Amino acid sequence: MNRRSLLKGGLLAGIGLPFLSPADLLAQSKPLAKKAKNIIMLVSDGMSIGTLNMADLYANRTFGKSTNWIQLYKDSKVTRALMDTASASSLVTDSAAASSSWGGGMRVKNGSLNVGPKGETPQPILQKFKHSGKKVGCVTTVPITHATPAGFCVNIDSRDGQDEIAEMYLKLKFDVMLGGGSMHFDAKRKDGTIIPQFQAQGFKVAQNREEMMHLTNAGPVLGIFAPDGLPYELDRKNSPELMKSTPSLAEMMSKAISLMKDNPKGFALQVEGGKVDWAAHGNDTGGLIFDQLAFDEAVGQAIEFAEKDGETLVIITTDHGNANPGLFYGDSNKDFDRIQHFKHSNEWILNQLNNSSSEKNVAELIEAGTGIGVTAAEAKQLLAHFSDIIPGQLYNAANLPFNELAKIQAKYTLVQWAGMNHTADYVELTMFGPGSEALKPFIKNYELHNFMLNAAALSSEFLAPVVKS
Amino acid sequence: MNRRSLLKGGLLAGIGLPFLSPADLLAQSKPLAKKAKNIIMLVSDGMSIGTLNMADLYANRTFGKSTNWIQLYKDSKVTRALMDTASASSLVTDSAAASSSWGGGMRVKNGSLNVGPKGETPQPILQKFKHSGKKVGCVTTVPITHATPAGFCVNIDSRDGQDEIAEMYLKLKFDVMLGGGSMHFDAKRKDGTIIPQFQAQGFKVAQNREEMMHLTNAGPVLGIFAPDGLPYELDRKNSPELMKSTPSLAEMMSKAISLMKDNPKGFALQVEGGKVDWAAHGNDTGGLIFDQLAFDEAVGQAIEFAEKDGETLVIITTDHGNANPGLFYGDSNKDFDRIQHFKHSNEWILNQLNNSSSEKNVAELIEAGTGIGVTAAEAKQLLAHFSDIIPGQLYNAANLPFNELAKIQAKYTLVQWAGMNHTADYVELTMFGPGSEALKPFIKNYELHNFMLNAAALSSEFLAPVVKS
Ligand SMILES: [Zn+2]
Ligand SMILES: [Zn+2]
Repeated sequence: MNRRSLLKGGLLAGIGLPFLSPADLLAQSKPLAKKAKNIIMLVSDGMSIGTLNMADLYANRTFGKSTNWIQLYKDSKVTRALMDTASASSLVTDSAAASSSWGGGMRVKNGSLNVGPKGETPQPILQKFKHSGKKVGCVTTVPITHATPAGFCVNIDSRDGQDEIAEMYLKLKFDVMLGGGSMHFDAKRKDGTIIPQFQAQGFKVAQNREEMMHLTNAGPVLGIFAPDGLPYELDRKNSPELMKSTPSLAEMMSKAISLMKDNPKGFALQVEGGKVDWAAHGNDTGGLIFDQLAFDEAVGQAIEFAEKDGETLVIITTDHGNANPGLFYGDSNKDFDRIQHFKHSNEWILNQLNNSSSEKNVAELIEAGTGIGVTAAEAKQLLAHFSDIIPGQLYNAANLPFNELAKIQAKYTLVQWAGMNHTADYVELTMFGPGSEALKPFIKNYELHNFMLNAAALSSEFLAPVVKS
Repeated sequence: MNRRSLLKGGLLAGIGLPFLSPADLLAQSKPLAKKAKNIIMLVSDGMSIGTLNMADLYANRTFGKSTNWIQLYKDSKVTRALMDTASASSLVTDSAAASSSWGGGMRVKNGSLNVGPKGETPQPILQKFKHSGKKVGCVTTVPITHATPAGFCVNIDSRDGQDEIAEMYLKLKFDVMLGGGSMHFDAKRKDGTIIPQFQAQGFKVAQNREEMMHLTNAGPVLGIFAPDGLPYELDRKNSPELMKSTPSLAEMMSKAISLMKDNPKGFALQVEGGKVDWAAHGNDTGGLIFDQLAFDEAVGQAIEFAEKDGETLVIITTDHGNANPGLFYGDSNKDFDRIQHFKHSNEWILNQLNNSSSEKNVAELIEAGTGIGVTAAEAKQLLAHFSDIIPGQLYNAANLPFNELAKIQAKYTLVQWAGMNHTADYVELTMFGPGSEALKPFIKNYELHNFMLNAAALSSEFLAPVVKS
């Protein structure tokens, strides 16, 4: 943060004082200059620094301009920190413990949602904000019952209880819940659909993009646009059908804001680019970069809203690194530029193959998905690895050879990966708007809980106890 | 940066004005509040964010405190930016082009030292500082003729001309040059030793730690403590002999500062943790973490000096990512803690093996070096990979199986790597002291050249032309 943004963003914002004494400026425990009426927290789940970097390189080379996230730095509009993402059980967190640290203000063990090591059940932050009179909601590209949104909403031992989390949402009656995961609400549930119960409680339920667009702020809304995760942005934007049926993350966020922004006491919204994490687990370069860009579109729209509004704190971050990808040394420019011709994710390619596919089949699908012409030997190599079981490979029930395809693809793109799971990396955290001036250069994930409550000037009874961890 | 450090670090430093108008505070083109008499630039060469992270995790778990670098963030003492590290020829730089961007103020092609794509030969920054009356120098753990120091000193087509660079140093007569690379100065040169010529020019030459300690500021000094790179810190600190013969990076830096600090016009010093890069090229976890910690010791001493001195700008950064290591998900805490028992680098282990070694030999050396008991199958696996040729693997003339050993080790430490070469990642840049307040949150590497000249208030004739790149 430089002087200009410090002063513009908070300290002097909108005040007409002709002079400030250095003593005033130095005081630390003073109340914030301005409170945040609204909070939008955007989480690109599982975003290693290389993911942010490659999306920005892609944007520069393809569109001649930075991503919205990096442009905020170039314009000196934000404060930044590194965030320590550990959980109570490990230096490397999962998304449940990470979201709980923000949502509940304490570190819990991996897998848990706001249930502490000693059985503590801190009240989740969106319950607090709701109680204080704000409208609240979550939007995500993965199931709305998944770890990251759930960590802002509920207390439950295990993140796997997604059907139960759906029932909790019914009781919470939060204002806007948009994402995937319809299988946890509809007839695919063991105990049958609970959608009628949502409707009986006054929810409007949208199940495609068109229905979402028609939602109004007359009552709570639930939007569920896929049985599990939403499609990768790269697959969506190259399928007219998916473009019609499925909203983008930015469209969901924009709708959520429009449904909540007129509330006199403001709103709190979590926005998750959840499939960035899934793409990293699959070493899926196309999935990763285009979902990060879709996330970045939401970043741009959130900032645009906040700039006009003037009372909105925007927090942009990730919950942990994942797979630590990077663009590597070599003929990197032309190789990296091949990604501009990608039309589909590796998931799209591999889902159409199995161990009885021919080498020709393999080569044609890779060509159709990425424009890359692999050799017969590479096609054969990929086929040999169907049914590979790779430790730590999540979201890959069919044991598709994501790892092997990534290795072959790396020869053409120079994008390489260090693994298929989360890392302990300290991560990028960025803030814009009222309250952002209080951010220090290093923060532990659980400290964000009270940070948000303080920024919104919620009364101190809501604060989590200050712990050392 | 927060308010407190902004004000303490620069803007209001040492001035007694009772009031500042917001207009004054907002003015951007005003001269800096205070000029930097001294500049210390510390470069952990090839440091991916995971390297910074793992060194800090190690320090926290082993010593119960942060690294000096991260502690600066916790204390809100510094400004931070992300730096774009591209070269004129590639999104992924080498160390020559990277150091040239800082040293010459323009991007050059990989491999070149301050010779531009059109034959431009911008004057290297230490020549400018020398001309302005400052004392100047470089210290490094790799050859003093290597890319990173050389990029601050000379213009030459190819970084490979290290013998020629040694001759250039003779003519430049810079005040302090300490590092490795004696082979480029002594009888190992094709044309014989040039050390007597250095002495004839008034240089005092030190060839071990003891001799270094006795150097005085009566004239220029050259210290060369190994034929090529200095030993890894992990190997040094576990060898009484090396501890005696070879200085640490912090000791070299400390000596350099003491030799230059009394100059009335100040000094400019580059300090490189060069073997962090070499360790990353070798996926050598022990080499990496302990050399990063040795670098961090230098960071701590540089800040200590700067805090007392009050007129020193300290810049802490890296030139590019390398190998993007990370601590991965799993039983990460106890696995990561195994590194506390490491006694030697993987280089130390592999240099004692060859393809006629026995499995028992392999297992014993790995146990001696790291405390890890590998299985017979793993020992066999490693032996099978002697003479592997891995693309992009530098500093490995003997084709030792660094890659395979890292894969085996990863099962025990959960530290994994995405490759064996540089990456395009945007990197961490940190500043402390006068001038640091002008740092914006995003910077391109070549912009640092004029930034340093401006911080030191060198006359504008020295500035590089402002380019868009
Ligand atoms: Zn994940
Ligand atoms: Zn290197």
